[in-house]
Amino acid sequence: MIAQAFEKQKTLDRIEIPPRILLGPGPSMVDPRVLQAMAKPLVGHLDPIFLRLMDDTQDLLRYVFGTQNQLTIPISGTGSAAMEAAIANMVESGDPVLVCINGYFGGRLAEMAKRYGGNVQTINRAWGDVFAPDEVRDALDKFPAKVVAIVHAETSTGALQPLAEIAQIVHDHNAIFIVDTVTSLGGIPVQVDDIGIDVCYSGTQKCLSCPPGLGPITLGPRAEQVLTNRKMPVISWYLDLSLVKKYWGQERTYHHTAPITANYGLYEGLMIIAEEGLENRWQRHKLNAELFWEGLAKIGLECLVDLKYRLPSLTTIKVPIGVDETAIRHQLLEEYQIEIAGGQGELKGKIWRVGLMGYSSSEDNVQLLLGALKDLIIDKQ
Amino acid sequence: MIAQAFEKQKTLDRIEIPPRILLGPGPSMVDPRVLQAMAKPLVGHLDPIFLRLMDDTQDLLRYVFGTQNQLTIPISGTGSAAMEAAIANMVESGDPVLVCINGYFGGRLAEMAKRYGGNVQTINRAWGDVFAPDEVRDALDKFPAKVVAIVHAETSTGALQPLAEIAQIVHDHNAIFIVDTVTSLGGIPVQVDDIGIDVCYSGTQKCLSCPPGLGPITLGPRAEQVLTNRKMPVISWYLDLSLVKKYWGQERTYHHTAPITANYGLYEGLMIIAEEGLENRWQRHKLNAELFWEGLAKIGLECLVDLKYRLPSLTTIKVPIGVDETAIRHQLLEEYQIEIAGGQGELKGKIWRVGLMGYSSSEDNVQLLLGALKDLIIDKQ
Repeated sequence: MIAQAFEKQKTLDRIEIPPRILLGPGPSMVDPRVLQAMAKPLVGHLDPIFLRLMDDTQDLLRYVFGTQNQLTIPISGTGSAAMEAAIANMVESGDPVLVCINGYFGGRLAEMAKRYGGNVQTINRAWGDVFAPDEVRDALDKFPAKVVAIVHAETSTGALQPLAEIAQIVHDHNAIFIVDTVTSLGGIPVQVDDIGIDVCYSGTQKCLSCPPGLGPITLGPRAEQVLTNRKMPVISWYLDLSLVKKYWGQERTYHHTAPITANYGLYEGLMIIAEEGLENRWQRHKLNAELFWEGLAKIGLECLVDLKYRLPSLTTIKVPIGVDETAIRHQLLEEYQIEIAGGQGELKGKIWRVGLMGYSSSEDNVQLLLGALKDLIIDKQ
Repeated sequence: MIAQAFEKQKTLDRIEIPPRILLGPGPSMVDPRVLQAMAKPLVGHLDPIFLRLMDDTQDLLRYVFGTQNQLTIPISGTGSAAMEAAIANMVESGDPVLVCINGYFGGRLAEMAKRYGGNVQTINRAWGDVFAPDEVRDALDKFPAKVVAIVHAETSTGALQPLAEIAQIVHDHNAIFIVDTVTSLGGIPVQVDDIGIDVCYSGTQKCLSCPPGLGPITLGPRAEQVLTNRKMPVISWYLDLSLVKKYWGQERTYHHTAPITANYGLYEGLMIIAEEGLENRWQRHKLNAELFWEGLAKIGLECLVDLKYRLPSLTTIKVPIGVDETAIRHQLLEEYQIEIAGGQGELKGKIWRVGLMGYSSSEDNVQLLLGALKDLIIDKQ
């Protein structure tokens, strides 16, 4: 057995990490400053220095989320874990839950809510479309849900969902508003308190430009109330925010060992955002996306989503008839070291997904990808 | 708000990470090679290079676990997430579960099993003791459990639980045997296939000496059968191994974005173990622990656990009467940069916990800590 491992190891240490240009739906590229921070030696998860880093990280997350919420922390798992934390803490067995589905991640929210015992109803839109406020109002008039969940930036379609009016409607119906901002936070305005989002979560590997592994989440006072008033404990012990918040709060009660290194990285990534300034960062994402869209139009490639609801952080491009979707992606990766992604679910084979997020959102990367797409699709045809 | 953040940031960038000597119950110190690996630029979670790294990581995990199990992967969360994955996948509503509790983590297993709907019975031993095979047999004769869970190395007490006979008894009763090896894997023999463990999990920040953030787990054929035959889906979507295994298996079906950087680190940490050789590593942990125990006896400090069941990776020391447990720990950290921990639960204030795990398990560290303890406790009295 050990001999086998040594044998294997001879193969293993030939793995070299190539310098990829990450323009897919995440992970995005990571600022070398963040990687440097993650190479620092470890301290304990109850070390006074780490507790201070936790406090500062919470302040920076509040800044990025646009909130004063006390309960604002990174979940010790990826964005999917943060999504599950949102559902697991807000939904109890039998609770009526309304989920708006216009892409893959809306569907996942519904699946999770069912698993946690929710009485789930959905409203549905074609992938790439967004919901109008009236659709949510009509649904809530018929089905008085305790929780409404929607995706701000659908990573599977590239559509940007307007939230303000829907938030008002949800609150008029006394429901809790859960919003997925995995592909928007840090790249597109997400103003939790101004909009009135009760539970908002994200991932670190998109516009925050840190490695995947943490899932920032924030809960407003109404959501905290729901958590306090639960009849039964949260089924997931790991994601039970009533326990996790005692470690991040004044009590510092041990729950699980925080991922020290990932938190070093998140802290540094958030510092970079504070230094750039949120407005500047939003503007950079917008300008580079517009540059990309103009370039696509010039070479005759069409976007899936209407300009009005098009996500600056993630662009979905229709694959032209007669072009091999997979082959183009493989060529981009092998010949240009550029990663982009294909479609998911019902859009599989029909679109490419291009992320211009965080550190990846630069004019250089836009020009590089446009040049490569022109080479591979237009000039070779 | 943004002005506030900038104001805050001026304070923030003064945080410097001090070079701690980590001799607590985890995280242990991390080999600089692992930190270097984690500073490498990111690739996508479906990049062919990353898929190969995943395959090799699985092989190395099989080597460390001592198993041929196909389903051997790192959960994308800490050791606590791996514990929850074990319970969540094996326990359905109403299932009889027997949990052996002789410390904090046995209690947590019982708590998780209850949350996932298990009909939980426990057998209990004083903290610091271990279970005799007959106790488990008697319990199973009266309560035919579907699942039996036990902790191999109790991080809260420093006791090492013998497993072989109990495994046989559990199988004779047709139950699934879940074993927590968070504080043993990579430092003390854990032979999953030889012993007959059905579900075995660990964390990365103990004897594997990687940063916290991943939770290795392995499921044998009987456990996979239970997973396949479930009546209901696993409540936790994030930890549902029937989904996760399709990403780690041939299908490569997207589930969640793997923590790329943490996996770079785990891969490198496992390579270091393969290079050292498991037997050599076990021997190193044993010799350094024995050296430490001898040194403790010389300065008149007593261990909590009988030598026969004493854990080489984690030593629990009785706080002498009249000594301020907390003050000593603070002095160790502030004056010597050494981290050790206090007791948990019923042992709070009564013991110190000293980890000699992975990269932290060295003769130098043993002598350093012995010298410091002598200074602070013996010479100053």
